[in-house]
Amino acid sequence: MDEVRQHKYVLDESEMPTTWYNLVPDLPSPPPPALHPGTLQPAGPEDFAPLFPMDLILQEVSQERYIDIPGPVLDVYRQWRPSPLFRAHRLEEALGTPARIYYKYEGVSPAGSHKPNTAVPQAYYNKLAGVKKLTTETGAGQWGTALSFACALFDLECEVWQVGSSYDAKPYRRLMMEVFGGKVHRSPSELTEAGRRLGADPKNWSGSLGIAISEAVEVAATNDDVRYALGSVLNHVLMHQTIIGEEAILQLAKAGDTPTHIVGCTGGGSNFAGLTFPFLREKLAGNITPRVIAAEPASCPSLTRGVYAYDFGDTAGMTPLMKMHTLGHDFIPDPIHAGGLRYHGMAPLISHIYELGMIEAESVAQTECFSAAVQFARTEGIVPAPEPTHAIALAIREALKAKETGEETVILTALCGHGHFDLAAYDEYLNGRMVDNELTDEMFAAALATIPSVPVG
Amino acid sequence: MDEVRQHKYVLDESEMPTTWYNLVPDLPSPPPPALHPGTLQPAGPEDFAPLFPMDLILQEVSQERYIDIPGPVLDVYRQWRPSPLFRAHRLEEALGTPARIYYKYEGVSPAGSHKPNTAVPQAYYNKLAGVKKLTTETGAGQWGTALSFACALFDLECEVWQVGSSYDAKPYRRLMMEVFGGKVHRSPSELTEAGRRLGADPKNWSGSLGIAISEAVEVAATNDDVRYALGSVLNHVLMHQTIIGEEAILQLAKAGDTPTHIVGCTGGGSNFAGLTFPFLREKLAGNITPRVIAAEPASCPSLTRGVYAYDFGDTAGMTPLMKMHTLGHDFIPDPIHAGGLRYHGMAPLISHIYELGMIEAESVAQTECFSAAVQFARTEGIVPAPEPTHAIALAIREALKAKETGEETVILTALCGHGHFDLAAYDEYLNGRMVDNELTDEMFAAALATIPSVPVG
Repeated sequence: MDEVRQHKYVLDESEMPTTWYNLVPDLPSPPPPALHPGTLQPAGPEDFAPLFPMDLILQEVSQERYIDIPGPVLDVYRQWRPSPLFRAHRLEEALGTPARIYYKYEGVSPAGSHKPNTAVPQAYYNKLAGVKKLTTETGAGQWGTALSFACALFDLECEVWQVGSSYDAKPYRRLMMEVFGGKVHRSPSELTEAGRRLGADPKNWSGSLGIAISEAVEVAATNDDVRYALGSVLNHVLMHQTIIGEEAILQLAKAGDTPTHIVGCTGGGSNFAGLTFPFLREKLAGNITPRVIAAEPASCPSLTRGVYAYDFGDTAGMTPLMKMHTLGHDFIPDPIHAGGLRYHGMAPLISHIYELGMIEAESVAQTECFSAAVQFARTEGIVPAPEPTHAIALAIREALKAKETGEETVILTALCGHGHFDLAAYDEYLNGRMVDNELTDEMFAAALATIPSVPVG
Repeated sequence: MDEVRQHKYVLDESEMPTTWYNLVPDLPSPPPPALHPGTLQPAGPEDFAPLFPMDLILQEVSQERYIDIPGPVLDVYRQWRPSPLFRAHRLEEALGTPARIYYKYEGVSPAGSHKPNTAVPQAYYNKLAGVKKLTTETGAGQWGTALSFACALFDLECEVWQVGSSYDAKPYRRLMMEVFGGKVHRSPSELTEAGRRLGADPKNWSGSLGIAISEAVEVAATNDDVRYALGSVLNHVLMHQTIIGEEAILQLAKAGDTPTHIVGCTGGGSNFAGLTFPFLREKLAGNITPRVIAAEPASCPSLTRGVYAYDFGDTAGMTPLMKMHTLGHDFIPDPIHAGGLRYHGMAPLISHIYELGMIEAESVAQTECFSAAVQFARTEGIVPAPEPTHAIALAIREALKAKETGEETVILTALCGHGHFDLAAYDEYLNGRMVDNELTDEMFAAALATIPSVPVG
């Protein structure tokens, strides 16, 4: 144990990437466009204008491979970026695996997750456009915290609809948003038409990301100096996260390693995209050959059990139609602890590359996730948020396979946030009260039946 | 805002200091020895042997200026050390001050505070000595979390007595210890003689660090393969923390700055010592001339209102007598939120250098602390633990003085932990429910009267 083992690979602020990477122009075929729900014609910038400032809309449809990160955004990033890349020596030792496991840790950010990577530029571009207030939804609370923080820096108001079950179970999450100056509502709320309508059905009382999105979108769409900010799913959001993977490429080079497996958890897809898109660029260029695997919850498996179809991004049906892997826009996922992964759909861009065969997906039940998480905490010292426990569980599966075969696989994963506000879930696990509610075929069939019938463009 | 501002100063793992610094041999006079409570003679190593392994006892009385950090301890440190030094650009901007404010952030550690710096070597030396289990107390929960983590790494059992009021108010803290494998009891408990006796008095039901120490010490003293670990106060604990200041010296050199003010919060004194002792070495050598200021809570002001006298370290009177600034060993501090600062005494070594005039002290009321903390969170993005809010409040006081005078003061402080488990306190503050219960002269007089009468050796 006296050998000098390097645990983390840090970069100087001067080594931080200064551009975001856009995967779209490098793809063999473009992703299908979003459709206007009325005309079923491709949605144009003007269709998004009530919700987003033009700078972000142009990023959403950009064909540029790289987009410069504005100076004021870089200035904020520099406080916690570049984030560390850790080698999990002690976890490897505990597993007795020849695999080398690396994790890129985004929990060092102000919100404790990867979310500020996009919250900060979104607040910045909205401020530039003269917006006064941003509305949003939050599931686990990570996104609402990030946007509250970003709005504090750019002097914007921030109003957050928090999924009811999360609001009830995690008062500290609400408090964190309030410390940063955000205003938080339990969703479904009485404040919006969508909230009142959907909230009338007892099935919806615990809320969902889809419902909370409907509420936040409604307020933005009906108020002139208010816009909406989304924490995942859209192209520009995924692109803002690519700084994670760009840094990881530089850090793995310092470690002298090349990944054979890249594993990220997927809810809406922003963390997964942020980690993997820059590596997919290198794979498309023939420089590396890793397997790239999405880890999703068994209770909300949009990639492994959803269908690839045009569907709404929200429950009330207010957004453009997006072609994506979906469980149906009124699917109410099981109340599992990984609130950030409880979304009925998958980012259209990730859905598209999944169809292209560029990535794989596996689902994991939450008891396996928490078993992995406790082992991780007791060796690596970081208590993971429930979302990345899915990726950790898959990384451990692969490390144990390597133990069988003796292969020195190199596994890279993203620890996209800490679990300091999720300890009640650990309590359930440690005290044997956590269960896996696998969904039945009937439940899937019922939800899938609500997907609108749209002729494929 | 487009200028490139450096926000953090990082060191490579290879730049991490490999020795702890012992201030004692550099002092103009030695600190008074601990006394055996029966004989009133200086306590020898054998008096400490039931509680600590010999390696730590020898460090406690060492006259060496530097002690090598063992390889296995360095290996664990390297996971999160060197910790970052941040320049608080956005806070400075918000204050409109010409002062430059730096904070050394220890919240990146597994326990979210500076405590693992000593928990890890303590667990290591106990493991070497064949110990099976460590007992300890915890106030805010930071120390118990750190020791639970360290024990997990070195395969030791860990049993923690958590101060009753903290146990009741912060279930997530207990859960964090349990995730790391620690066993947690509410103090006063029924498990010890001291707990049963002191717990009989309703005044003690909310607990105190002094009572929890008595319980943990009793279990260690009466079981052969069990030892006790203390999170502050003692010389060896303070010494383990000096890696904070040693790193800060290297980082400030990279920033090209020399501190004019160094401010740290003090409970038992370990964070303050860790930050300031290496700088005091430089000051004693005539290299720098900073003011060095201890920030303590107005509700538990051992330096500014305590007396300098021999007193017990615990409430039941089981420890050796130590000469220190004390409010009386059965002083039960006001239930303020900074649980880590609610200790009746001050580290003997810090008390001694305070008497020598090497450091100053100021007390701060908790509403001023939380006002500073919210301003800090909304600019710097980190929600501080209640303990370091005292140091932040003093740093802001000094920065505002600089604004008056126009002086470019350089303020260094230690942000010794994050407040993710303390958000209920922020809730109280934000909703106007927080009050400052200043202590009366009568209350002080009553507590001070319990200090034993010991002829000064």
